Amino acid sequence: MESNLSDVGEKELINYILSKCNTITPDDTAITPLNKDLNLISTTDLLIQSKHFPKTMSFFQMGFKAVTVNVSDLAAMGAKPLGFLLSIAIPKSLNFNDFKEIIDGVLKACEFYEIPLIGGDTNQAEEIIISGTALGLNDKSLMKNTYNNNDLIAITGDVGLAALGFYSNNPKYLENILKPIARIKEGIILNENGATSCTDITDGLGSELHEMFNGKGMLIYEDKLEISDEFKKIANSLGLNYLNLVFGFGEDFELLFTIPKDKVNQLKDKLDFKVIGEVVDSSKINLVLSNGEIKEIPQDGYDHFL
Amino acid sequence: MESNLSDVGEKELINYILSKCNTITPDDTAITPLNKDLNLISTTDLLIQSKHFPKTMSFFQMGFKAVTVNVSDLAAMGAKPLGFLLSIAIPKSLNFNDFKEIIDGVLKACEFYEIPLIGGDTNQAEEIIISGTALGLNDKSLMKNTYNNNDLIAITGDVGLAALGFYSNNPKYLENILKPIARIKEGIILNENGATSCTDITDGLGSELHEMFNGKGMLIYEDKLEISDEFKKIANSLGLNYLNLVFGFGEDFELLFTIPKDKVNQLKDKLDFKVIGEVVDSSKINLVLSNGEIKEIPQDGYDHFL
Repeated sequence: MESNLSDVGEKELINYILSKCNTITPDDTAITPLNKDLNLISTTDLLIQSKHFPKTMSFFQMGFKAVTVNVSDLAAMGAKPLGFLLSIAIPKSLNFNDFKEIIDGVLKACEFYEIPLIGGDTNQAEEIIISGTALGLNDKSLMKNTYNNNDLIAITGDVGLAALGFYSNNPKYLENILKPIARIKEGIILNENGATSCTDITDGLGSELHEMFNGKGMLIYEDKLEISDEFKKIANSLGLNYLNLVFGFGEDFELLFTIPKDKVNQLKDKLDFKVIGEVVDSSKINLVLSNGEIKEIPQDGYDHFL
Repeated sequence: MESNLSDVGEKELINYILSKCNTITPDDTAITPLNKDLNLISTTDLLIQSKHFPKTMSFFQMGFKAVTVNVSDLAAMGAKPLGFLLSIAIPKSLNFNDFKEIIDGVLKACEFYEIPLIGGDTNQAEEIIISGTALGLNDKSLMKNTYNNNDLIAITGDVGLAALGFYSNNPKYLENILKPIARIKEGIILNENGATSCTDITDGLGSELHEMFNGKGMLIYEDKLEISDEFKKIANSLGLNYLNLVFGFGEDFELLFTIPKDKVNQLKDKLDFKVIGEVVDSSKINLVLSNGEIKEIPQDGYDHFL
């Protein structure tokens, strides 16, 4: 029987590409060595209005986010921004001023992340489609799977706030989903200060922990995630399990990274972050709940097709 | 009165972006100097099924073309291919085997052009959308507007064949629209052998001559375009002006370039090309018809929105 794409998942599509092609780095971005001390880092992300932009998002915020999602992948590699390419397709019926707002959002984000807009393409489509490509440079890359025994697991900020903003429409949390900020400076600091692996958590903390997994177990502590009582209360009032919001939703543009214990103090002088767990002698990705119970963290990331 | 995008043209969109941003090179691609002898060349093009792929095009050909359109821009800069990024969005209802065919087309093209597929993104949309980014390197770039007095104007192949294929569905010409080939090796040869300017002519020969124009007049000779009698006959039988097919349609992936007269012989040893005209002491872009009459070449390129 022939299958269509609602039967197979996005992972199947990617697996097919990877099975036919050995020139793709299975990490946040592509890495192309230019010489022994310099890598070109490149990444592309396609955003589609009906799928990636909440209905309450402004045109300016769409433009800003299209840069953020790509810059976030550079950040996860510890790369310095080099340039941004913008492909944009818009419906004929779109107001010219709305188009200008999207572009203003793109340009404001480029200014914010200090990444020049260097080229692109314009087109017509049935809905707004923004495909960005971010280019960067580094001398070595922060890979996903290169953590070591006894490393600590840490994160640059709070997790779950975008999910809470999305489900609650609470103005305090809405900013996290409408105008996320990529951690580009943080990625560079991590790369220069001994982080052993790194990724962004836009596909969800659970999914990204599984993406990082290299066979060495990881133990995350609920208490170290510092989930506020308010967060739990709002989730509860919406009938949602707060741990699902924290581990399953994504759209937080924080960096999840590992660092040897003896480098933590040096890093604390340069960066705000939270240690949320540690690499342990097991083969599982587990969560220690506040009540002491231990449970496995499921891989509930996005899958665009299922 | 507020205008929407069917009132303004694609050029207006690009003009708005250029008016707000001084970091874009107004040429075929972006150029980012990495050091004094090395430029990163980057370009992105978004293809949308209902707009860019003829109904008779196979899925394999769609994938191949998505690479070709981007590689053609590298060719126009005289760049060597470095890597290709693929963003693809497809409808849920698409058969998995059709998706595989698209990817096989992409990979075959990458192999053909010797440009590795290094990364990308998959997504879901209402129709097939393929956004490619091609990366390349050169030591100097072949710009559009840098031709000089007395240079000859030349082209790497025939012009108008894609248009004829599109309108006639004649199998002999259909290949030109269904499986175009970018002139990547030719671009590198031109860059190494004294070409003074270059662009591809995918937006139409007329449009590209106007894009190249730097104030020095250009004179093109109809006879030197070597339009076959068969071409004229088929166009005529379709009720089409053959000169409109040659100058107005585009989708030919040939390179239009200029070269000093004293470098033509050296280039002839390395490359097939046709001299079609010359830079002249006027301020016009003119065509000398076979009957000796001279007429201005109009700028009838694509405009996606009008």
